[in-house]
Amino acid sequence: MTSQPQPVDTAPARRPLFADWLAHSNDVTSVFLAAGQNPDLVNLAGGLPEPALWPVEELAELAAEAVRNHPTETLAYGPIPGLPALRDLIAQRFSAPGLELSRDNVLITTAGMQALELVGKVLLEPGATIAAQSPAYLGALDAWMPRAPRYRPMRIGADGFDPHRALAGAQFAYTVPNFSNPSGRLVTLAERHALVEAAHDTGTWLVEDDPYGVLYYDGNPLPRMLTLSAARAPGRYDGPVVYMGSLSKELTPGLRLGWVIAAPEMIAALATAKQGSDMCSSGLSQMLALGAFRRRIPERILPQMLATYRERRDALCDALQTHLAGHLDWQRPAGGMFVWARARDPRLDSDRLLHRALAQGVCISPSSVFDPEGLDRGAMRLNFTLNPPDRLEEGVRRLAAAIHATLEEG
Amino acid sequence: MTSQPQPVDTAPARRPLFADWLAHSNDVTSVFLAAGQNPDLVNLAGGLPEPALWPVEELAELAAEAVRNHPTETLAYGPIPGLPALRDLIAQRFSAPGLELSRDNVLITTAGMQALELVGKVLLEPGATIAAQSPAYLGALDAWMPRAPRYRPMRIGADGFDPHRALAGAQFAYTVPNFSNPSGRLVTLAERHALVEAAHDTGTWLVEDDPYGVLYYDGNPLPRMLTLSAARAPGRYDGPVVYMGSLSKELTPGLRLGWVIAAPEMIAALATAKQGSDMCSSGLSQMLALGAFRRRIPERILPQMLATYRERRDALCDALQTHLAGHLDWQRPAGGMFVWARARDPRLDSDRLLHRALAQGVCISPSSVFDPEGLDRGAMRLNFTLNPPDRLEEGVRRLAAAIHATLEEG
Repeated sequence: MTSQPQPVDTAPARRPLFADWLAHSNDVTSVFLAAGQNPDLVNLAGGLPEPALWPVEELAELAAEAVRNHPTETLAYGPIPGLPALRDLIAQRFSAPGLELSRDNVLITTAGMQALELVGKVLLEPGATIAAQSPAYLGALDAWMPRAPRYRPMRIGADGFDPHRALAGAQFAYTVPNFSNPSGRLVTLAERHALVEAAHDTGTWLVEDDPYGVLYYDGNPLPRMLTLSAARAPGRYDGPVVYMGSLSKELTPGLRLGWVIAAPEMIAALATAKQGSDMCSSGLSQMLALGAFRRRIPERILPQMLATYRERRDALCDALQTHLAGHLDWQRPAGGMFVWARARDPRLDSDRLLHRALAQGVCISPSSVFDPEGLDRGAMRLNFTLNPPDRLEEGVRRLAAAIHATLEEG
Repeated sequence: MTSQPQPVDTAPARRPLFADWLAHSNDVTSVFLAAGQNPDLVNLAGGLPEPALWPVEELAELAAEAVRNHPTETLAYGPIPGLPALRDLIAQRFSAPGLELSRDNVLITTAGMQALELVGKVLLEPGATIAAQSPAYLGALDAWMPRAPRYRPMRIGADGFDPHRALAGAQFAYTVPNFSNPSGRLVTLAERHALVEAAHDTGTWLVEDDPYGVLYYDGNPLPRMLTLSAARAPGRYDGPVVYMGSLSKELTPGLRLGWVIAAPEMIAALATAKQGSDMCSSGLSQMLALGAFRRRIPERILPQMLATYRERRDALCDALQTHLAGHLDWQRPAGGMFVWARARDPRLDSDRLLHRALAQGVCISPSSVFDPEGLDRGAMRLNFTLNPPDRLEEGVRRLAAAIHATLEEG
């Protein structure tokens, strides 16, 4: 405490370089999150839920009860793969005829993003191949970027798509079968069967990322690939599907809680990886999730959520029809959070459009960020869950103005 | 929904190999956490706090208030680097004369383990060099293992230790100056100055991992290397020290909350890395931490914590003196959570001892897990914070029996 260091005025020594991948990262997620701070901006980017749907008072009570009645589970270090009671509940919740799950099939994660990161950590050596549904979820590309994988794009549903050829030799295949982010596409039952068959035949792991699995606005939910895989060898699950779910869309994202369901050898590898990533997930979030599931909160809030989001999907699509039918092509998605719209005019560059749109007071996600090569600049992802119908209509008006201005620039 | 898959009975295809690092991982942390489930075992391994010190009812009320009064901050996606109010509070808390910190100097992390993982993610290409205080924290070795670094051991305080030679050409230096895990050693003020000078001269980043910074049982806390570094160029901090703190020891570990304080360019890089790891830390944990700091809970519980842990440190050291003075060498640490004890007899292999000890009903941490090469088998780490004095005495009795048995085996 008696030191008297002298300020020195020398040029700082050269610092070590950051890892190479940082030079290739994009800051679009930061742009989206920052855009959310501007109250007049209509945010059609991002994938944010409607906060008014959250049962705040009930969650406040659950949080207090969790700490008061379970101080060890909430406040102490917990087991790396998650609290046993929560793993058991997830196992029970996803079990189905032919699909027997136990806690050894379940890892609790710090939300869906960590599940993606951990799969990369246990499966990707530099240069390894991922067969990825195209266009692909930006967060998955972010999670795997430091491991410099090669991407083999899977255009599921396109003429000539061959799942066996797509999966053979890849470390894993990555899919979002329910209302893919960003395309909003529902992978059909026949396509699910074909992907599962290819995974069993080739041995390749098949990642089924399912954040939007409850958000069906039209029709009944299709069976999970996890369940289809189990039907090929009924009993305790040991197959190639790596299923990922989270609380973020069903309840709230801020608790940062998700889960992986997979063969025990995969769960064990992911747990070893998690040990060196964050040791264990928040005990408070885990106990709150357990309490919410036991009280069936996700089931109780779902009808209102579906009604709200269905109305907003229709409002966005109707506004697109009114203001942009001549400029964009899109399909009304049967669920999820996004409409994927492609420009008819090849001169419309959605990277340039983003900046025009921000100037008009609307934010979109340009297609380049969903392409591992960054080359696709002809489309955009539009979110409909965050804003009420009148704001969606206003956002599309602003987007139309931005598109006209961009095209006039030439 | 009309599919009728036929169960097929074929040998499963060969699965892709897991990444190579998994073959080199150890499961000792799992062993420790599992050992904690056996109520009769005296757990001297691990680094667990005393749960009776936690203000459970007050934390339960804070949790409910956080959700009720701040639903957006607790339940929605938050900014990647952390909630602004919490970053501001950490900046203010660690500012000192000459050390000006703003939120741009602060990243909120999912506890200390994530801070280590993110530093590896932004600084380590395969084969990069880490200058690491030796013996080294097991969790740091776990965090960096997938990136296959080279380790240059730093024996701070040993004859001939030259900080400039140690740091030159390394991507970063890793130190735990306050009561190092595992050695319990306090890095002296002169050694801190020398390390800081070497970091400024060489440009190498200097990681100051400080989970035990409040746990001084004798004497006054030494200044942080962060503060010493700032004194060399007073003002807004932009120096080479990367300081890591967490709630785990000061309050509770289960909330999984920590922070990094560093130059803005480092914070920006770490935030980009965090985006692909877990997007943001739990909003509920962040608001709970903010409430706890504002109510000065860490300061209020500290005197009882210090009294409890000081008594336990003395009980462990006294028991070692009574039962093992002829077999082990150790020093009474001035703080922290651990005593590091080295066997006088070179035949005493602490990896073998661990299994003997578990059979006797006591768990220790063998020195091999704190050595990147796994070669040091002559010492052990003993924790004194989890158990009351009589259990510590019983644990040392059992350890003495295990040591005698191991030596008799030959």
